[in-house]
Amino acid sequence: MTTAIMPKSHAAELIVAERIRRGLTWADIAEHIDAPLVWTVAALLGQHPVPADKAITLCAFLGLDDRVVESLVRQPTRTADDAAASDPTIYRFHEALAVYGPALKELIHEEFGDGIMSAINFRVDFARRSDPDGDRVVVTFDGKFLDYRW
Amino acid sequence: MTTAIMPKSHAAELIVAERIRRGLTWADIAEHIDAPLVWTVAALLGQHPVPADKAITLCAFLGLDDRVVESLVRQPTRTADDAAASDPTIYRFHEALAVYGPALKELIHEEFGDGIMSAINFRVDFARRSDPDGDRVVVTFDGKFLDYRW
Amino acid sequence: MTTAIMPKSHAAELIVAERIRRGLTWADIAEHIDAPLVWTVAALLGQHPVPADKAITLCAFLGLDDRVVESLVRQPTRTADDAAASDPTIYRFHEALAVYGPALKELIHEEFGDGIMSAINFRVDFARRSDPDGDRVVVTFDGKFLDYRW
Amino acid sequence: MTTAIMPKSHAAELIVAERIRRGLTWADIAEHIDAPLVWTVAALLGQHPVPADKAITLCAFLGLDDRVVESLVRQPTRTADDAAASDPTIYRFHEALAVYGPALKELIHEEFGDGIMSAINFRVDFARRSDPDGDRVVVTFDGKFLDYRW
Amino acid sequence: MTTAIMPKSHAAELIVAERIRRGLTWADIAEHIDAPLVWTVAALLGQHPVPADKAITLCAFLGLDDRVVESLVRQPTRTADDAAASDPTIYRFHEALAVYGPALKELIHEEFGDGIMSAINFRVDFARRSDPDGDRVVVTFDGKFLDYRW
Amino acid sequence: MTTAIMPKSHAAELIVAERIRRGLTWADIAEHIDAPLVWTVAALLGQHPVPADKAITLCAFLGLDDRVVESLVRQPTRTADDAAASDPTIYRFHEALAVYGPALKELIHEEFGDGIMSAINFRVDFARRSDPDGDRVVVTFDGKFLDYRW
Amino acid sequence: MTTAIMPKSHAAELIVAERIRRGLTWADIAEHIDAPLVWTVAALLGQHPVPADKAITLCAFLGLDDRVVESLVRQPTRTADDAAASDPTIYRFHEALAVYGPALKELIHEEFGDGIMSAINFRVDFARRSDPDGDRVVVTFDGKFLDYRW
Amino acid sequence: MTTAIMPKSHAAELIVAERIRRGLTWADIAEHIDAPLVWTVAALLGQHPVPADKAITLCAFLGLDDRVVESLVRQPTRTADDAAASDPTIYRFHEALAVYGPALKELIHEEFGDGIMSAINFRVDFARRSDPDGDRVVVTFDGKFLDYRW
Amino acid sequence: MTTAIMPKSHAAELIVAERIRRGLTWADIAEHIDAPLVWTVAALLGQHPVPADKAITLCAFLGLDDRVVESLVRQPTRTADDAAASDPTIYRFHEALAVYGPALKELIHEEFGDGIMSAINFRVDFARRSDPDGDRVVVTFDGKFLDYRW
Amino acid sequence: MTTAIMPKSHAAELIVAERIRRGLTWADIAEHIDAPLVWTVAALLGQHPVPADKAITLCAFLGLDDRVVESLVRQPTRTADDAAASDPTIYRFHEALAVYGPALKELIHEEFGDGIMSAINFRVDFARRSDPDGDRVVVTFDGKFLDYRW
Repeated sequence: MTTAIMPKSHAAELIVAERIRRGLTWADIAEHIDAPLVWTVAALLGQHPVPADKAITLCAFLGLDDRVVESLVRQPTRTADDAAASDPTIYRFHEALAVYGPALKELIHEEFGDGIMSAINFRVDFARRSDPDGDRVVVTFDGKFLDYRW
Repeated sequence: MTTAIMPKSHAAELIVAERIRRGLTWADIAEHIDAPLVWTVAALLGQHPVPADKAITLCAFLGLDDRVVESLVRQPTRTADDAAASDPTIYRFHEALAVYGPALKELIHEEFGDGIMSAINFRVDFARRSDPDGDRVVVTFDGKFLDYRW
Repeated sequence: MTTAIMPKSHAAELIVAERIRRGLTWADIAEHIDAPLVWTVAALLGQHPVPADKAITLCAFLGLDDRVVESLVRQPTRTADDAAASDPTIYRFHEALAVYGPALKELIHEEFGDGIMSAINFRVDFARRSDPDGDRVVVTFDGKFLDYRW
Repeated sequence: MTTAIMPKSHAAELIVAERIRRGLTWADIAEHIDAPLVWTVAALLGQHPVPADKAITLCAFLGLDDRVVESLVRQPTRTADDAAASDPTIYRFHEALAVYGPALKELIHEEFGDGIMSAINFRVDFARRSDPDGDRVVVTFDGKFLDYRW
Repeated sequence: MTTAIMPKSHAAELIVAERIRRGLTWADIAEHIDAPLVWTVAALLGQHPVPADKAITLCAFLGLDDRVVESLVRQPTRTADDAAASDPTIYRFHEALAVYGPALKELIHEEFGDGIMSAINFRVDFARRSDPDGDRVVVTFDGKFLDYRW
Repeated sequence: MTTAIMPKSHAAELIVAERIRRGLTWADIAEHIDAPLVWTVAALLGQHPVPADKAITLCAFLGLDDRVVESLVRQPTRTADDAAASDPTIYRFHEALAVYGPALKELIHEEFGDGIMSAINFRVDFARRSDPDGDRVVVTFDGKFLDYRW
Repeated sequence: MTTAIMPKSHAAELIVAERIRRGLTWADIAEHIDAPLVWTVAALLGQHPVPADKAITLCAFLGLDDRVVESLVRQPTRTADDAAASDPTIYRFHEALAVYGPALKELIHEEFGDGIMSAINFRVDFARRSDPDGDRVVVTFDGKFLDYRW
Repeated sequence: MTTAIMPKSHAAELIVAERIRRGLTWADIAEHIDAPLVWTVAALLGQHPVPADKAITLCAFLGLDDRVVESLVRQPTRTADDAAASDPTIYRFHEALAVYGPALKELIHEEFGDGIMSAINFRVDFARRSDPDGDRVVVTFDGKFLDYRW
Repeated sequence: MTTAIMPKSHAAELIVAERIRRGLTWADIAEHIDAPLVWTVAALLGQHPVPADKAITLCAFLGLDDRVVESLVRQPTRTADDAAASDPTIYRFHEALAVYGPALKELIHEEFGDGIMSAINFRVDFARRSDPDGDRVVVTFDGKFLDYRW
Repeated sequence: MTTAIMPKSHAAELIVAERIRRGLTWADIAEHIDAPLVWTVAALLGQHPVPADKAITLCAFLGLDDRVVESLVRQPTRTADDAAASDPTIYRFHEALAVYGPALKELIHEEFGDGIMSAINFRVDFARRSDPDGDRVVVTFDGKFLDYRW
């Protein structure tokens, strides 16, 4: 009989396991499938559908079978995970928004008028910046401004 | 008899009213008190204590009295405001973290080891970037990496 | 021994898997069982009981067995899924209601008096509209007005 | 001394009171300020900043003073109001999304690919449609499709 | 200057105070304005708009002024009050639904097919029934069946 | 080794499956075990312990084995199911209580004094009433009044 | 013009203030109005309507005016106060129920059958018991058993 | 390979099943392991670690194997179960605390000073008391007073 | 007429305002009333009743009137404040408990047996410790062990 | 085919089971892997990645296989567990923070300025202190101060 498509969370667990067992970095994987780094991690964790050619390349690279390919190409449902948001590494970003979110809102409206930064026409970049006082995490949110337009 | 210190939310409302009535931008104000832009907005909305000299300069600039100065210099309690987080302009940032937060966590750990990006030794920058497809909001989170260190 | 009826969520997963594996669109399926498009998708995802003849036709079309038929015809319990509501594609509809819901309430009462738009004697239509600035999603809610009538 | 800007909720209460006392419909008001109907109601209830000329025209029409004008033109914070969502007239829309939201998501992705209907580049229309079985409320959501674009 | 319409909760408090001070029962009031008993109480507590003639009659009866009339005739927003639901006298009804709600759902579907009992085309009756083991509260919910009709 | 008693939710699923497969109504089942209709449905869904003789009769009727009997006779824990309460057919009852609950509380106190309608010494009846405007669901809550008695 | 009845929470604050200023114990007050101790405290804090004669006696005793009497005799709405439940002195009781509640349920059913201890036909007693290891708080819940009776 | 210790909830289900199948009361079991009644039920449902000798005696009595013994003696985590608190038999206790909790707090402070009734140095007793108006459930909470002591 | 006792939150706001205006540290205040430092701050913020002599000394020191004294000596209700818990300075303590709480539980049980660290017979100390890598906050929780004792 | 990495919660359950079966204390284990006590317990319960050499040593000591090693070395997601926080032994710490958290915040700011105690550059120590009135649990939080630094 037919079977359901493997859940993306399960596919992600298999990818993570093989990544660790083979000693690969996320950058190795992103390079292998020729995709941006943050996008690659997010997509393989289940947040974006993966184009079929990239999914096939990835699974060949990691020794995963076709059920993983089928799972990766499927359109995801992106449900917010409140438990994950309490992880300290992720929580600091939400805390920064609690402190600076209303200020960013003021500045977006002052600079662009009434509207939003798109989270869809959007990219995130991640970098390490050296600093004599201790290296720094630099994360850039870069989204198209969308004005409230009737 | 003695009176309580004016709540920071009240001081913020007065500052915003005068800013609008005098036709000043946040950038005008930040320049006048010689402070970074995002920090200035956040601090005047109540998220940071304002050094006394800057508070006095600001209130002279906006025609506000000493009770506002006293309120601005007080140490704030920074409580998260769930209602504000549902404003579409702010929500998009939280949504981006729901989608990309676990990916950022993976990359922070891969690059730096077990730890977090500090939200305290931290700055946020805001910029507009021209783009032929529509200008873009660019927000940079820049925090010192802190490793779990026993 | 007897077995429970297959949960509708499981039947939906099997239908989705076969739909994708056979390269069928939802419109192909709706046409095959001769039912409206949005109704068809909602019903096969588990939100409406499916008439027996349509369920049999569908399962023959997709190569699914009788346990799926039995599941589809069962009366559903339609519980709200808060996690699904946080998916960005679905969230935008709820956000629009947060912004425009009280305005729609004002207009319903002004036009019809005290009452509601039925969500039971109700249909939803979905369309794509071409637009030089980018095509648009057009969703129409069409429900019978019910007045508070004692 | 300076005063805070009147809260938009207060301005809305004054507008509603004058609208009722003068026997005006929302359509009368929308026509008077030359703006779309649903937009007008939403904006005057506090969900959109009102252009200064329209705010002045409105307040002259309703006999309201400059503090209302100042409040109307201010940029709003659009916080979701869970209590309002439990009003039966508004609840039916949320219930319809609980039932049909996942189906709309399927159809948006099938027709347009991975992305969302914008709630910002967006309009809502409201109409009454005659029907021999009882007139119907017809509400149309019309938003630009935005694809996840890195 | 203009004033907002008195909140319905405030009008209700005034009505309740006068009802008690004058020694009137709710039945006296319902009879005086010629309306059903449960409807009358619900409407005066703020859950239904009161027709103007009844509002005028009521306020004359209780010695309340025109601001109360204006409040009573306004269309209400009927927000659910979770705190009120924890009052023991009201809680027992919700508890009964927790125990018997799924059974009522089964019986509605068996008897009528897929649909609901309307809470809009709906009335509630209240009665006391003598019983040698202790008198009983008898509350009848009577709503039109609405079938899911596309 | 010993095994746990089958959960009541599992027993209910088996009963529902057999009821449907054999084409029996709930009324058929209630009659067969000689019990009131609403009580029967609630009890078989897991809300009341079923007397042993009725459980045995039922399982013989539906071809279910002794593990179902054992489950049915066990004392239930009756936990409120918030998800079920969002099903539209059940939700309408809760919505009616949000609108009319405080009015019922006023009337209970006026008629009986301070106290409650028992949800334990209590019965629910379900009926269909013909009506030229569409048949109606009539649900009666009938509970003993209990006064606060110290 | 008429005024609303003083909220019971306000009346309670006045009673507490006078009790403290006059150096009276709750037992002094209970004795003065000839009522059980726990009942007296609960009623004066707003959880029970106070008979008119006792309310008049109390207010004469404490020098409070007729508005307090009017408030005390009114039927209360007894809403659960989740914040109060987090007070350590009250929390320990809820914690004890988290630990022992399911055990009490087992024993009630074993001893009495299916049903509940009434919280309406119910009294609470409070005592201090000397103990060489430290005196003990002894609280007794004493409620009529009510069996589920259809 | 090694296995995890059986969860206490599973052990409890096996004990309950055997108790029922063998026709034993909780009092029979408490007597057999020579422990107080309420303590016994709570401990076997998973709220207290059971001394090894009592666990062995119990499992011999009920024909349960060593994995149950191992589970019973383990230190529990006592997490509050909000679902269980909605069971009517348990809910009445929480409702009583909502009504009488603040009164008990007042009396504890008046009698003992600032502090709490311990829920750790604590016992609960359960009794049936005959009453011509219907027998009563009598539950006694008996805990050592602990004063806030710095 | 009589007045309610000033809320402790109001008294705290007045104390904080005078402390800042007079340039006093919390240590100055604690020394002046001869009480431990953390206790003093907690008590003046409203978490402990203040002995009358200390309250009088404090108010004389800060120029506050008798209404503040009366407020300080009153028994507090200590409700948990979830908003305050989201302040970053306080949140870090809760986060540490999320990470280390289960470990502390294991160690308490291993060292002491089944029981708790009292939060009532309890003190907190606060210190600064010099460290070449940056000074450290050292907070010590010191509470009597209480064993579950029936 | 490949398998997912064993969840850390499962690895923790196996470690706990072997620790108990072999009669080892947490201190025995901490000593064997040469790590601080509280860190060891937290890490083995899943809150810290365990260095590979320590994981191998541990699993050899407890007779656990390589799948446990692989699980222990993986980077954890540290989600807050609200259910665990209601366990009385853990709850007392959160309660202490509800009472003393705002006081600690005041003192941190007075002593160090605006900032936080780090929960990352942080250690917790646990000790038993003898006391004639009953031994005491002493828990020390020791974290680097981080000042808000732009």
